[in-house]
Amino acid sequence: MAIRIGILGYGNLGRGVESAIAQNDDMELVGVFTRRSPESVEIRTPGVTAYHVDDLASKKDDIDVLILCGGSATDLPEQTPVFAKDFNVIDSFDTHARIPEHFANVDAAAKEGGHIGIISCGWDPGMFSLNRLYANCILPEGSDYTFWGKGVSQGHSDAVRRIDGVVDCRQYTIPVDAAMDAVRSGSNPELTTREKHTRECFVVAEEGADLARIESEIKNMPNYFADYDTTVHFITMEEMKANHSGLPHGGNVIRTGVTGLDKEHKHVIEYKLTLDSNPEFTGSVIVAYARAAYRMNKEGMTGAKTVFDIAPAMLSPKSGEELRAHLL
Amino acid sequence: MAIRIGILGYGNLGRGVESAIAQNDDMELVGVFTRRSPESVEIRTPGVTAYHVDDLASKKDDIDVLILCGGSATDLPEQTPVFAKDFNVIDSFDTHARIPEHFANVDAAAKEGGHIGIISCGWDPGMFSLNRLYANCILPEGSDYTFWGKGVSQGHSDAVRRIDGVVDCRQYTIPVDAAMDAVRSGSNPELTTREKHTRECFVVAEEGADLARIESEIKNMPNYFADYDTTVHFITMEEMKANHSGLPHGGNVIRTGVTGLDKEHKHVIEYKLTLDSNPEFTGSVIVAYARAAYRMNKEGMTGAKTVFDIAPAMLSPKSGEELRAHLL
Repeated sequence: MAIRIGILGYGNLGRGVESAIAQNDDMELVGVFTRRSPESVEIRTPGVTAYHVDDLASKKDDIDVLILCGGSATDLPEQTPVFAKDFNVIDSFDTHARIPEHFANVDAAAKEGGHIGIISCGWDPGMFSLNRLYANCILPEGSDYTFWGKGVSQGHSDAVRRIDGVVDCRQYTIPVDAAMDAVRSGSNPELTTREKHTRECFVVAEEGADLARIESEIKNMPNYFADYDTTVHFITMEEMKANHSGLPHGGNVIRTGVTGLDKEHKHVIEYKLTLDSNPEFTGSVIVAYARAAYRMNKEGMTGAKTVFDIAPAMLSPKSGEELRAHLL
Repeated sequence: MAIRIGILGYGNLGRGVESAIAQNDDMELVGVFTRRSPESVEIRTPGVTAYHVDDLASKKDDIDVLILCGGSATDLPEQTPVFAKDFNVIDSFDTHARIPEHFANVDAAAKEGGHIGIISCGWDPGMFSLNRLYANCILPEGSDYTFWGKGVSQGHSDAVRRIDGVVDCRQYTIPVDAAMDAVRSGSNPELTTREKHTRECFVVAEEGADLARIESEIKNMPNYFADYDTTVHFITMEEMKANHSGLPHGGNVIRTGVTGLDKEHKHVIEYKLTLDSNPEFTGSVIVAYARAAYRMNKEGMTGAKTVFDIAPAMLSPKSGEELRAHLL
């Protein structure tokens, strides 16, 4: 019998989860839940119904894992603990500073309900975190570096959209090749924020807007842009739609370290993602971990978990024998 | 109290494990065990004694994890099940076809003795296997590629040394850049053995040996060289010592796959190792997993395990709180 999945939230991530479910034979999408009017939501998977989020209360026995596809700012801190009481849940919470608090809230609720609650799943946090952990355990004496991009940062794009006179923006985060090469050399460079990444903005402005002012406001925006070298291009809405409609992303996690009684040998561990679609890849990671949530709960485990707590074999539909025979 | 480690076998890997233990504050090397005469073995770590392997029988209470550093051909198939009865053990068994049998033997012995027996730990099998597994679970529709090198293959070096007239050999396995680039493009190339790697041999021959015959015997050796483009260089013993005394290695595990309801988005997951010292890096992986063996056994688990079965957090000396705060 297939693992029955519910999706809460049908934005980019929800659709990414939906397409990932379609690629996994042991999974079945039983419904998409939304705060909007369900009639207004068209689900792409044939035969799957959109429900109002309030209908979840009556679906406790029909859903093995509920995948929460809301945002980290306000949705997930509230939703994940609430729904962990009634469902195995998984989210992609990525507000780093609030992870301890979120973990504690989900842990209490999931234990109370007898469920598993996986938080902060995706690629960063998620696969990048895993690679940082493995590499740190293998090379205890070394340095960590994370580079992001080239890819679209939704947070930075949104920040620019809030500027007066801006109609739309797509912001690309671009890693600096020279910085990555310096890291790979094992020279342990200390890199400033400006040396690691550049930022490139494609902006559609209102007709007659003061482009010089917009460009200046972008480049000097604290936290988002002030510490980076930023390039701003003003384009038309047609160009935006034609050339910047995708959500590619990716990045590199690199750890360099030494071994040997005299620390005489250098090593470089590098993990690299090149992604055409950030939300579909994130959804694919989440769906694999949804399988783990289901299985761990079947084995009697409860409480909050992260990618650190989950044995890799739990993610696979294959048996231990098959995995050892074909992938070890 | 530190985790007390014993090493069985003091070749390249045993020494690599030794130096890794010195880099982990929560680990203590309590003894090196050897089939040689212990008096003939000089242990590099101050204060550590060499014992005969037969002395292990009296050390059951002094060792938390015994790390087996013998070879896969004859040592480990015998040793790992035998010692799993009395110790938590870990090995780097890498004879792929015999893993199911070895796993079963170690599982039975470890369960009988109430211990954990981790097999096939290192980087391949080991970290490369893990990356194949994670990437397959995330991208169920895709292709796997593993490239090795540039690095020294001990098996191929040994095979050349067995040729009449050869005094010494160092064989480098070299991945073909064009093949890796084709893979990274997402074009899913079908690559022959010859297209993926080349082989380069540095050979010291006996004085007066027939070099043309040696070169021909190397290039036509079945399984080892016949399917590859191989280059042979004859060098002096002085050059061998000066330029080829290290044991570098590494490689790339790449999975490419598609997502989207119409499979319209490509993704590339790549894991790359660049290692100055193959045995020290392998030893470093094994020592991290020795920590996991100790902890899993403390939690009441027994039986054979591989890297697939072990939650990543088990490898780290840090607490779950610390890991979530700093690496997630």
